[in-house]
Amino acid sequence: MYVAIPAAIPFKPTNPKTRLSCMLDQEERERFARMMLCDVVAAARMAGCEPFIIATEPFVFGDTRVILDEHGLNDALNDLLLRTPGPLLVLMADLPLTTPDAIRRLTSSSADVAIVPGRGGGTNAIFLQHADRFRVSYYGGSFSKHREIARESGLSCEIIDSFRIHTDIDEKEDLVELLIHGEGLSRAYLVELGFSVTIERGRIGVERKGEGDMSGLMP
Amino acid sequence: MYVAIPAAIPFKPTNPKTRLSCMLDQEERERFARMMLCDVVAAARMAGCEPFIIATEPFVFGDTRVILDEHGLNDALNDLLLRTPGPLLVLMADLPLTTPDAIRRLTSSSADVAIVPGRGGGTNAIFLQHADRFRVSYYGGSFSKHREIARESGLSCEIIDSFRIHTDIDEKEDLVELLIHGEGLSRAYLVELGFSVTIERGRIGVERKGEGDMSGLMP
Repeated sequence: MYVAIPAAIPFKPTNPKTRLSCMLDQEERERFARMMLCDVVAAARMAGCEPFIIATEPFVFGDTRVILDEHGLNDALNDLLLRTPGPLLVLMADLPLTTPDAIRRLTSSSADVAIVPGRGGGTNAIFLQHADRFRVSYYGGSFSKHREIARESGLSCEIIDSFRIHTDIDEKEDLVELLIHGEGLSRAYLVELGFSVTIERGRIGVERKGEGDMSGLMP
Repeated sequence: MYVAIPAAIPFKPTNPKTRLSCMLDQEERERFARMMLCDVVAAARMAGCEPFIIATEPFVFGDTRVILDEHGLNDALNDLLLRTPGPLLVLMADLPLTTPDAIRRLTSSSADVAIVPGRGGGTNAIFLQHADRFRVSYYGGSFSKHREIARESGLSCEIIDSFRIHTDIDEKEDLVELLIHGEGLSRAYLVELGFSVTIERGRIGVERKGEGDMSGLMP
């Protein structure tokens, strides 16, 4: 019998993605974060996983299961890991370029621990064969910490080579990546808000125009 | 008979990587660029390719073949493409995280054109089954241009998902990626110069210390 791999997706519904405040107001950031979550949930499902959300506050998201955990990211996940003897995928919610193929390459790793690093030393996705043998430590260079935790625990570790899962959307420059490479709801939402890619003197950027412009945000 | 896929690597020996001037003087940038080229050439060889360099000025690089072409990047490459009816890989020289596996995933694509995009809309590597049916157009959002050129030419196009080839080293922040994920000569050279990863208030950065410090560059 095929059992879908559970995929935990931590999510913060209120006032997320503050580093995008220069381009999006709070309501837009909350909608944008939900759209990215949609894209990630859809990719995980298409990859044969069973996604569920770990939310920091009460939150409803269609028919996707939501677990409420008000502890920090590390405590919430480590609590879950301890209770999970089998495989578990942990996937961040701000990875809207994620494809089913990229997730499948990750979850088909035969290593005990398989990691897709994020830009800047983070951990964007981690697949554990036996979740209860591992513990996570996010923030501040988590990629190196996770590799070290695997080593200390005697677990084999593989790095999975994917720019789609590597690309998290935190800052204005990241929106360029989503506009160029995205195919899901979060990209469509940006386009609806008037975002587009610009090229000036050979350098790529992003601008926001039209009905959804930022004039309402200006002082 | 197995024939190695030719891999063209454009290279500028003099005063390269000027956006790293804040961290490296000209001589160091020139050595660093050669070290990155070493890493790329080695990965291409291990992937079963036959790398050669297209240099903008006379240049010797061990036993690797060097073609001198003083025209711009696009003219030099399009001239080469026209004369190449078979397969050709074009790989940038500033991709020191490139692995043989990543190159093999690229060159085993069955599409007419396979692209690994760079961050910011660029094209870091492109594999052509029949090079003479394609033309390149680098600078200013080349990824979208190359996809469009493939479409206009009736050629199938596949995007290859690799953060290792996606990560080009242009700016200070990129050095963090090399220090964390690199395994070759260019990373060793940075370490020799005193570079290391820093973590301050949870954010990752890079600093340069010790004998190789920047004091000689200060006014």
